[in-house]
Amino acid sequence: MQLGGFDMSRIKDILNHNQTFVQEGQYKEYVTDKFPDKKIVILTCMDTRLVELLPKAMSLRNGDAKIIKCAGAIVSHPFGSIMRSILVAVYELGATEVFVVGHYDCGMTGLSSGEVLNKAKERGIRPEVLETIAHSGIDLERWLTGFGQAQEGVVKSVSLIKNHPLLPKEILVHGLIMDPTTGRLDLLSEDASVTDTFIN
Amino acid sequence: MQLGGFDMSRIKDILNHNQTFVQEGQYKEYVTDKFPDKKIVILTCMDTRLVELLPKAMSLRNGDAKIIKCAGAIVSHPFGSIMRSILVAVYELGATEVFVVGHYDCGMTGLSSGEVLNKAKERGIRPEVLETIAHSGIDLERWLTGFGQAQEGVVKSVSLIKNHPLLPKEILVHGLIMDPTTGRLDLLSEDASVTDTFIN
Repeated sequence: MQLGGFDMSRIKDILNHNQTFVQEGQYKEYVTDKFPDKKIVILTCMDTRLVELLPKAMSLRNGDAKIIKCAGAIVSHPFGSIMRSILVAVYELGATEVFVVGHYDCGMTGLSSGEVLNKAKERGIRPEVLETIAHSGIDLERWLTGFGQAQEGVVKSVSLIKNHPLLPKEILVHGLIMDPTTGRLDLLSEDASVTDTFIN
Repeated sequence: MQLGGFDMSRIKDILNHNQTFVQEGQYKEYVTDKFPDKKIVILTCMDTRLVELLPKAMSLRNGDAKIIKCAGAIVSHPFGSIMRSILVAVYELGATEVFVVGHYDCGMTGLSSGEVLNKAKERGIRPEVLETIAHSGIDLERWLTGFGQAQEGVVKSVSLIKNHPLLPKEILVHGLIMDPTTGRLDLLSEDASVTDTFIN
């Protein structure tokens, strides 16, 4: 879709690898169908440390779960993309349980709109553009502000999901925090404190 | 966070597995930092068939990329959660290239709001609640409607990202479609046609 700039791009490497992957039948061990075998949907963060770590640390193989990812695992609006994805997983794909998995050392902790917008200006976004956006009713400051602690983000997301007017009452919703190095999961209680992790 | 219903829940199994995973040091092969080594951010679908398949088919190890996931890989609003995640990846984490990866046989193809809302009613959501939402200015029909073809969703998302007023001009944005069985990637051109997949 971007027809120039391929020399600096990763796309050639990715497509070359992809061709080999398909031709050698490396996909065969991942074949499954679109319904999540464990009937769970996970909302977690886009962090690069969780790409392979999270499925391994939660024992999720291809086919086990729907996985939704965004910066900070935040559900910022009850009628936005993330909540829609959760409802589609529940109504169309049979998920009965939602796991919100934030993580310590998250990039959304302390994210400051002022810093992001300064970087945007340094990268060539003109101040007039920012003014036009502000005068169009978009609150960039609110939009680009993160949370104080990982727990705070997870608790807010869990609360929004549990209270969503379109979520069936029997759906379980859990809040957890992962250590992005070891994959250790801490289970959060209603008041956002960490409970005994292992509930044997 | 959900303190009842553990018997039917997967959480005990997941936490038990997690304890073993950490104690045995299984995380050690995934240790990395939060900056994506390949400087890429991927927006793809929450589909369960892509959980392990997509990273393997694109040669992405833990630490290589930021991965954002939602139903249909759709950026539905220029100031929503998904676009915010992309901008955070660019400004805060050094991503220079965006890959939108839709897939064939996507659950958002032909998603019908009427069917979803009927299922919601069958699961106990009262018609008065739906009316209240509608009368609060929320367009549920639009919100719960998918796209005609996977290509359509990807092309729209790519266009919205490329034209976003806060995205630096030098960021590359690609559109691709994955076969959810084999992992094969098709590269989309500007007019949404599939180009020669391998651009050696």
